[in-house]
Amino acid sequence: MKNSIFAEGAAYVRGRFVPIADATLPVTDWGFTRSDVVYDVVHVFRGGFFRLADHLDRFERSMAKRRIRPPEDRAAIEAILHRCVALTGLVDAYVAMVASRGRPRVAGSRRPADCENHLIAYALPWIDVVPKDVQARGAHVFIASTPRVPDASVDPTVKNYQWNDLTSGLLEAHDADFDTAVLCDAQGFLTEGPGFNVFLVKDGRVTTPDRGSLEGITRRSVLELCTELGIEAAVEPIPRSALDHADEVFLATTAGGVMPASRIGTRILGNDRPGPISMRLKDTYWRKHEEGWHRTPVRALEAEAGE
Amino acid sequence: MKNSIFAEGAAYVRGRFVPIADATLPVTDWGFTRSDVVYDVVHVFRGGFFRLADHLDRFERSMAKRRIRPPEDRAAIEAILHRCVALTGLVDAYVAMVASRGRPRVAGSRRPADCENHLIAYALPWIDVVPKDVQARGAHVFIASTPRVPDASVDPTVKNYQWNDLTSGLLEAHDADFDTAVLCDAQGFLTEGPGFNVFLVKDGRVTTPDRGSLEGITRRSVLELCTELGIEAAVEPIPRSALDHADEVFLATTAGGVMPASRIGTRILGNDRPGPISMRLKDTYWRKHEEGWHRTPVRALEAEAGE
Repeated sequence: MKNSIFAEGAAYVRGRFVPIADATLPVTDWGFTRSDVVYDVVHVFRGGFFRLADHLDRFERSMAKRRIRPPEDRAAIEAILHRCVALTGLVDAYVAMVASRGRPRVAGSRRPADCENHLIAYALPWIDVVPKDVQARGAHVFIASTPRVPDASVDPTVKNYQWNDLTSGLLEAHDADFDTAVLCDAQGFLTEGPGFNVFLVKDGRVTTPDRGSLEGITRRSVLELCTELGIEAAVEPIPRSALDHADEVFLATTAGGVMPASRIGTRILGNDRPGPISMRLKDTYWRKHEEGWHRTPVRALEAEAGE
Repeated sequence: MKNSIFAEGAAYVRGRFVPIADATLPVTDWGFTRSDVVYDVVHVFRGGFFRLADHLDRFERSMAKRRIRPPEDRAAIEAILHRCVALTGLVDAYVAMVASRGRPRVAGSRRPADCENHLIAYALPWIDVVPKDVQARGAHVFIASTPRVPDASVDPTVKNYQWNDLTSGLLEAHDADFDTAVLCDAQGFLTEGPGFNVFLVKDGRVTTPDRGSLEGITRRSVLELCTELGIEAAVEPIPRSALDHADEVFLATTAGGVMPASRIGTRILGNDRPGPISMRLKDTYWRKHEEGWHRTPVRALEAEAGE
């Protein structure tokens, strides 16, 4: 499949499978002009989806909360994701499912309920949110001054594209020559960063914020690993000052897994290298992938054709 | 021109003029996947742009604040807007200019600075944000429970597509059988609604919020009209409770002008009809349009071709 028209990525838009280069949406789609859209991203590792059912569960919850209902049901969406990956021939991939408000069926309507909701999906070659070399030395994480949008205004558990505050934090980080950023809320509690959850380790105990954050699937995986490894872990309020005392910091996301940090703000952590508990969680996360943890094999095109 | 391929709208994307139906952006554009995009909208009334220079000024400020720099300079953008309108043959139009972060030049980069920024523009037939019949009876405006995103997290003076809180307010309004909504911030101060500024009239004095709001060009026009008509007006903090005592309420936006309300929350204003000061401002706003106020004639295609 490597030389096929789908080698750079395969997409499903307007009910058809197309090469990623042809996957577009109208500039007047409310998914763009109002960012009225929800999405989810699942990864494929060596030919198998990781926690596909959990991602589909969250995508369905996001759609329900925003009242976006594309015509495809869950079984259809799942089949579309399989087919996108199979078309590319990729064994490691990043697979997005997107539900957009679309455009009004009634010309000139400004009512969300009048819109024709639609599904977009695509599979792309694997992309790490933090480059591999940065992961190896540990990410340098800036503490942004931009406050995270409050949960009451935009529900962070509904995975959305409204990244303005996160992008502002990222620009601050790059200006200061850091790799990425974490944001605090206006009350001074730690939240998340652009595309990842954040974890602290202090005296062998692992914590992650209970607010301003996506309920990450990788976050859930980390919490499960902590239980399995006998590491105490909690989801709780984390004041910004806790960053001044953390022994280790790591980031967690679908597009990268467990990614240790070596610097947070002006602090250098440990030996300016990834810490031992972060590395143990990272290694276990990938070792269990190899063992088939939460794995759903990608169905071959032939199998799909028979459905 | 009416039967041309541009009759439904003309757009400029990727450096080319196309019918609006062909105006698309990639599903992987960060303008979509991170809502990393700024825009502005100017209207054309009887063949003339209204306050074009003011809209271009604000668009340039929005781009600068988000560090989005498409290759087209101001003169080029202005020429593109003229040409979009001229191609449609429309005399009344709604004209959008959009600057998107685009996609990374370096595959896999997650850095905004690595992206190829690009301009989108389009002209569409005039759309009122509130239908004409609703404008005539006065809009029924719901007071949403969703708090407006704070200015510190997302600068509301940078015109953006991140409408999640505004859409939530709109859904609340439609559930309660209202036409539209206004939002207050978490501190209980009035801000704006989905696509418009809001004004109160009390004892002959006109006020509009100083926070959580776009610095609307129509808002500015209203304030100028107040000066001209000898009506006292101010931009100031407006507590939610002021809505309990307002004599009149009206909305202001490019896509509709001055739009009186007749109900706000559970209150019926005056005789359940647009109030006298609102109507005087609305009538003056349109009368002055007819007189050529702040008007820039749309250049004909022939003139454009000669540039």
